[in-house]
Amino acid sequence: MDIKELSQQIIKFRDQRNWKQFHKTKDLLLGLDIEVSELMELFLWKSNSEIDQVPKEKIKHELADIFIYLAYVAEKFDVDLEEAIIAKIELNGQKYPVSKSFGSHKKYNEL
Amino acid sequence: MDIKELSQQIIKFRDQRNWKQFHKTKDLLLGLDIEVSELMELFLWKSNSEIDQVPKEKIKHELADIFIYLAYVAEKFDVDLEEAIIAKIELNGQKYPVSKSFGSHKKYNEL
Amino acid sequence: MDIKELSQQIIKFRDQRNWKQFHKTKDLLLGLDIEVSELMELFLWKSNSEIDQVPKEKIKHELADIFIYLAYVAEKFDVDLEEAIIAKIELNGQKYPVSKSFGSHKKYNEL
Amino acid sequence: MDIKELSQQIIKFRDQRNWKQFHKTKDLLLGLDIEVSELMELFLWKSNSEIDQVPKEKIKHELADIFIYLAYVAEKFDVDLEEAIIAKIELNGQKYPVSKSFGSHKKYNEL
Repeated sequence: MDIKELSQQIIKFRDQRNWKQFHKTKDLLLGLDIEVSELMELFLWKSNSEIDQVPKEKIKHELADIFIYLAYVAEKFDVDLEEAIIAKIELNGQKYPVSKSFGSHKKYNEL
Repeated sequence: MDIKELSQQIIKFRDQRNWKQFHKTKDLLLGLDIEVSELMELFLWKSNSEIDQVPKEKIKHELADIFIYLAYVAEKFDVDLEEAIIAKIELNGQKYPVSKSFGSHKKYNEL
Repeated sequence: MDIKELSQQIIKFRDQRNWKQFHKTKDLLLGLDIEVSELMELFLWKSNSEIDQVPKEKIKHELADIFIYLAYVAEKFDVDLEEAIIAKIELNGQKYPVSKSFGSHKKYNEL
Repeated sequence: MDIKELSQQIIKFRDQRNWKQFHKTKDLLLGLDIEVSELMELFLWKSNSEIDQVPKEKIKHELADIFIYLAYVAEKFDVDLEEAIIAKIELNGQKYPVSKSFGSHKKYNEL
């Protein structure tokens, strides 16, 4: 299944519940951020060995929740996520040429 | 292109730059959150009519950046994003049955 | 009680529980962000009239939690919060002179 | 200077610029989160020795910005921050008694 089909399922789920009325832009942003925090909570305070013991099932759920909000925001602004991602990988290739960015964690404007 | 192929491109990009060494779990979480904030910045303080004028190109870039971090975290924990999303949509269907959640923004534990 | 005394109480609370060992910089940042999300959760999806009904007690708790993390980070980097705030208000006065910023939500570099 | 006086200076600064009109609850939450991300950016990808070299001046500015948003939200909901913090420290003392929480990073509901 490609991103478009997944997104369509997510939007269908939303519409079956008549939730679009709540999905104002700033609420979607808050919701997205809350999901990121739920992912963070799985790892907070944990050492590397404790991180290895975080149940994969929980990580999967939180990653999926974040994607669901991405799909909501994308739909709101009529963005084709797949196309956006492909274009961004290409743009990042220009901002971070291998020759300059290899083994460096500097931002592109500091390279 | 499906999510697996997109993710593979993202990981290839990372490995060509030898960036995996920096991608500790907590740094990926910080990075993910920073990208969400960059999306927020596009809309901060804006009225509905101002929101409509935010350049779609910028929204696309920020959504893509968020997905890129999702792909990084998924790879770190060996999560198949597509499978995780499909499973979560199903789980959400159980937590939010249409009959109880129609037109309501309550959390599943308050329905 | 001034900020210094409040911060000292917070640090004393931490040390009585031997928690400093967990307070690595990146964990404090995750913790701070999680608290901000808990504040967000009180308001998510809510209309203005629903916002007015959020229990003030809950808002107080979340604001306090955010401050507690601020105090943790400040102590870690030996920052005098009060002095930092006073200095920032002054700096903001230079970045946002009344004549240029009155009634505008533009960032200082766009004024 | 106590928190009340600092907060009053922050509110005076806001009112001199006629910014209250922009300070809707959800925008303040987005703004608060953006400031937390700016603090995060100072530390992203950095090793412990690199963290030690982050300019203290930058940390001070970001901590102050976060406090400024705290003061904005507190004013909006008529919260006395100092009182809220003192009350929360006491509540946390009940949730995290020293005997149970010493040397543990568990949440109070898992102790």
